[in-house]
Amino acid sequence: MEKKIPYKIYLTEEEIPKQWYNVRADMKNKPAPLLNPATHQPMTFDELRPVFCDELVKQELDDNTAFFDIPEEIYNFYKMYRPSPLIRAYCLEEKLQTPAKIYYKFEGNNTSGSHKLNSAIAQAYYAKKQGLKGVTTETGAGQWGTALSMACSYFDLDCKVFMVKVSYEQKPFRREVMRTYGASVTPSPSDTTKVGRKILEKFPGTTGSLGCAISEAVEVATEHEGYRYVLGSVLNQVLLHQSVIGLEAKAALDKYNITPDIIIGCAGGGSNLGGLISPFMGEKLRGEKDYDIVAVEPASCPSFTRGKFAYDFCDTGMVCPLAKMYTLGSGFIPSANHAGGLRFHGMSSTLSQLYHDGYMRAVAVEQTSVFEAAQQFARVEGILPAPESSHAIRVAIDEALKCKETGEEKTILFGLTGTGYFDMVAYQKFNDGVMSDYIPTDEELAKSISELPKID
Amino acid sequence: MEKKIPYKIYLTEEEIPKQWYNVRADMKNKPAPLLNPATHQPMTFDELRPVFCDELVKQELDDNTAFFDIPEEIYNFYKMYRPSPLIRAYCLEEKLQTPAKIYYKFEGNNTSGSHKLNSAIAQAYYAKKQGLKGVTTETGAGQWGTALSMACSYFDLDCKVFMVKVSYEQKPFRREVMRTYGASVTPSPSDTTKVGRKILEKFPGTTGSLGCAISEAVEVATEHEGYRYVLGSVLNQVLLHQSVIGLEAKAALDKYNITPDIIIGCAGGGSNLGGLISPFMGEKLRGEKDYDIVAVEPASCPSFTRGKFAYDFCDTGMVCPLAKMYTLGSGFIPSANHAGGLRFHGMSSTLSQLYHDGYMRAVAVEQTSVFEAAQQFARVEGILPAPESSHAIRVAIDEALKCKETGEEKTILFGLTGTGYFDMVAYQKFNDGVMSDYIPTDEELAKSISELPKID
Repeated sequence: MEKKIPYKIYLTEEEIPKQWYNVRADMKNKPAPLLNPATHQPMTFDELRPVFCDELVKQELDDNTAFFDIPEEIYNFYKMYRPSPLIRAYCLEEKLQTPAKIYYKFEGNNTSGSHKLNSAIAQAYYAKKQGLKGVTTETGAGQWGTALSMACSYFDLDCKVFMVKVSYEQKPFRREVMRTYGASVTPSPSDTTKVGRKILEKFPGTTGSLGCAISEAVEVATEHEGYRYVLGSVLNQVLLHQSVIGLEAKAALDKYNITPDIIIGCAGGGSNLGGLISPFMGEKLRGEKDYDIVAVEPASCPSFTRGKFAYDFCDTGMVCPLAKMYTLGSGFIPSANHAGGLRFHGMSSTLSQLYHDGYMRAVAVEQTSVFEAAQQFARVEGILPAPESSHAIRVAIDEALKCKETGEEKTILFGLTGTGYFDMVAYQKFNDGVMSDYIPTDEELAKSISELPKID
Repeated sequence: MEKKIPYKIYLTEEEIPKQWYNVRADMKNKPAPLLNPATHQPMTFDELRPVFCDELVKQELDDNTAFFDIPEEIYNFYKMYRPSPLIRAYCLEEKLQTPAKIYYKFEGNNTSGSHKLNSAIAQAYYAKKQGLKGVTTETGAGQWGTALSMACSYFDLDCKVFMVKVSYEQKPFRREVMRTYGASVTPSPSDTTKVGRKILEKFPGTTGSLGCAISEAVEVATEHEGYRYVLGSVLNQVLLHQSVIGLEAKAALDKYNITPDIIIGCAGGGSNLGGLISPFMGEKLRGEKDYDIVAVEPASCPSFTRGKFAYDFCDTGMVCPLAKMYTLGSGFIPSANHAGGLRFHGMSSTLSQLYHDGYMRAVAVEQTSVFEAAQQFARVEGILPAPESSHAIRVAIDEALKCKETGEEKTILFGLTGTGYFDMVAYQKFNDGVMSDYIPTDEELAKSISELPKID
């Protein structure tokens, strides 16, 4: 007899995964290596050490070890907010009148408000273990910066955040959360770095960009004794840490013998999607099971669906290593009307390879339809979702409505990466009926893609 | 052998209490009845019916029934976000180096961000069951309005919120959350009501007050067919619904044979404190156990510690029934520099009677020390607390530090009522070092208290 599924499936603390899972170990076609921007040769351990902590460089470069032990200090921190709940969306199913069964893994139940904390605490830990003084990073919308501030505060590490100037000014509350956790927050571009001064000289009055903030953060990390740079998405190490999301989700589903048919995640740089799907993708790669895995991206920043699979810079300052990924070109900037996150021009190399090899599909959605889904979800499920997360909600609802038409009782799992408390400006636009959509033209994309670096 | 206590003690869904507990049933001295402001006679069922739903009037007036069944529809909604976690503050204990054992019941894990939802869903349910079209209410900081909007959206009820104008303008994000849940939000005083127009005429340019918003909400409820007024604190019915907090907390502690020595809650109108302490107070009233029960209030609005136990109006418009309570006078308004909530001039009649009879004590704390505690807590426990909740944190930390001095291993339980995401303006003031304290002078209090109504 089928066990009654509760609204929220909680694992016990003992059931929090003890190891992260590295999906690359099960990939036949490994993700292409990071390249040195000067030599175009694969980045070595020694070349990456000045930028990242040693332990993280090892994780970044290791395509073969399937499982990494989660250090006890990180595990103890995880216990503060994990296991995160896997929720059966009974109320949403009822509202949609769908025969589909919808589950979501909710990662917003911590102050950082998103899944970003899973990797932030790991990166902070390794920095502390290496005896470093602090770390530097960039943040746009602020989820990553908030998570990192929390993590650094826990380990008593200095945390320098370069926040894209336009966000710094428009999202003062995000900034204050970071300050409450003891981080210093500098609007970028700033006059505190060489690259910042150069940019300010060239573009006086610029409100900044993610790429520019990355360049400043990297400069400070590499030029200050005892500092390293950390990043909240795109990298292999981040996907490794985020595998805790998928491992927990799978363990919770397994408890009730539930196998999802469709797994849906929003995708910007790929941190949440890569983590959510990892154990399921592992089974798929090993030929044990099949799943319909779906990446959802904004139509305004469509790297999977309209980008090119090629080597590109991760930052606009072009100081970071080159990564092979689906990219719109490092010069691409989403339209100013784009409200949610997910605005990175590229995509995780690991996910790019998996997509290229046909293990997953991608869908691009427009933001007004995303906010419609967000509002519908909020009203019945009681959680105010982040705009990023709402991309996944949009497609989960669409798939559930398809089931309503066909009568199929599919099981849908999606990732609810975070909450939208700091995104009320966007919600207000939607509530006022003044939110618009923008899809880049073919000409725009062709231009930014034409500027990709030439790699043999 | 003592079982290892996890960081978070979760009950199962089946362990959510099936009944609310009415502490009045165990009180020898019952709280004084509400009085009709015209006749000074106790309000009858029929007199209260035009204002509140029938079922809620019954709950309000029933001092004898110890347990009320939680209707299935409310129970199902509770399952969306309950049981809420009881958390062992291991990290805070470690930081304080205290032998005390600290637990907190966290009620911020739902979109409304606070415990207010426990009563909002109940009040919305009874309104729906009675076939009403909608409800009206007032909100200051916005926690109650948000919770009620969520609840009304769930039951498809119209929700009209009168939001104190200064909050409406300074907290646009709170407003947008309510709108996202489909509520109409009107800045108060407004020209949509008679009492609003009267106030605007008398005080042009006023930024409003809670008392004024109450008067507008009551007018709309009583003058529109199919509407009733609802309130998020102070009333007996609210304390009844909020008992779910204490019942869950006690059930979780009982699982591990833990008996708290001290129970601490912040107190504005008393909704959280009354709910948290209810089953413990019941044991104390019945002489089964003893607990040190502490109400924490802001020094800027000190109704318990400096108020008078007397009949007073609940609103400044003086249209609501009179309640016997500790009060600073309905004309008292906390200083403009006061950042957190807990700004009601009076206190729940039930809690007032218990305090008067010596079953609990009260402490008043100043806001900079409250924000210091909030920051300390956030940095180690990972949750950004609401300013209201941080009053309880302040005293929990103080008690834990006393234990450090004396070596006592006391067990402390406090209520963490909600999150501070919408309070970043106050956090910013604190971060910038420009937050100040204000304690009303004896003369000020004597003046507002001297204006209490004369009741024989």
